[in-house]
Amino acid sequence: MQLLEERIRKDGIIREGNVLKVDSFINHQMDIELFREMAKEWKRKFEGKKINKILTIEASGIGIAAIVAAEFGVPVVFAKKSMSINLDHDNYHTRIESFTHKKIYEVIVSKKFLGPNDSVLIIDDFLANGCALEGLLNLVEEAGASLAGIGIAIEKGFQKGGEIIRAKGIQLESLAIVDTMDYTTGSITFRQQ
Amino acid sequence: MQLLEERIRKDGIIREGNVLKVDSFINHQMDIELFREMAKEWKRKFEGKKINKILTIEASGIGIAAIVAAEFGVPVVFAKKSMSINLDHDNYHTRIESFTHKKIYEVIVSKKFLGPNDSVLIIDDFLANGCALEGLLNLVEEAGASLAGIGIAIEKGFQKGGEIIRAKGIQLESLAIVDTMDYTTGSITFRQQ
Repeated sequence: MQLLEERIRKDGIIREGNVLKVDSFINHQMDIELFREMAKEWKRKFEGKKINKILTIEASGIGIAAIVAAEFGVPVVFAKKSMSINLDHDNYHTRIESFTHKKIYEVIVSKKFLGPNDSVLIIDDFLANGCALEGLLNLVEEAGASLAGIGIAIEKGFQKGGEIIRAKGIQLESLAIVDTMDYTTGSITFRQQ
Repeated sequence: MQLLEERIRKDGIIREGNVLKVDSFINHQMDIELFREMAKEWKRKFEGKKINKILTIEASGIGIAAIVAAEFGVPVVFAKKSMSINLDHDNYHTRIESFTHKKIYEVIVSKKFLGPNDSVLIIDDFLANGCALEGLLNLVEEAGASLAGIGIAIEKGFQKGGEIIRAKGIQLESLAIVDTMDYTTGSITFRQQ
């Protein structure tokens, strides 16, 4: 998506260790007008698919998911991170390893809000190694829900997450796929889509 | 706001210890159509005030704030919770005690995204004792930003937060104020506004 790629070139900051900071428009300050354009793009890409719920994970996915849900006219469910080992039988739960925070989170969704009648679009801001997405896929499977597809704002194409998800035959729509980035020069290349 | 009060009566669950669960439409599953109506209500209530940014705190405030920001045509900044004592000079920081989670959070906002030129509307889902709001007010003050007002979805009118905030002369618009609730009978009364 050209608008997003241009914005990343303009306002994204590349740091050592393959870090791409987009906190001025995606995940600390949120440019809602940009999110609306992204939501319209996903609406086009998932045209014809049955989608009755958006699923995301706290915290930075929630803003994008809310605007996408407004575009699709459906509710959002966000998976909650918990550091406690919660064995509540009213929840689906899975574990997600965060490389950014060097932690393992227990992640839960209440059984009240996800079930066999749901057809879910997963939305998140980033895809790198795919740990968070694998966790959300586990929750969808555990709930017996259908997966309509996955919408990601920025995919790090040089990490393995996208490849693994696409190999499962899932419709994964990343609006910008970063193939290379270099913190010494500030240069960034996007995959042609 | 009648629509929200009716929804709380219909789908809210009252638990022992003055707990009001609204996770089916506010803070786990999010009813985006309801959020839009709430956003329109705040737009009316803050008519004429200069507002160029919505400020909230992760995680459950983010969804409402995003839809409110779409209505106002401005960006959102969400304060981030951190368990580490972060002395990063690029951030404003404050501490917030969570009674729900029995923890003290270090809460930060990057100095890049809040400053003297900003006129801020704070949005959050709940107001009870007011600890989270006091933290956000500290961040606004530290940034030298102006406060246009505060929009809260559900205020627990029998706790002290609302009274303290209003005593400061701040325009606080809670869309539903619960005056009493009783988990034994399931009855709930809202303040006439």
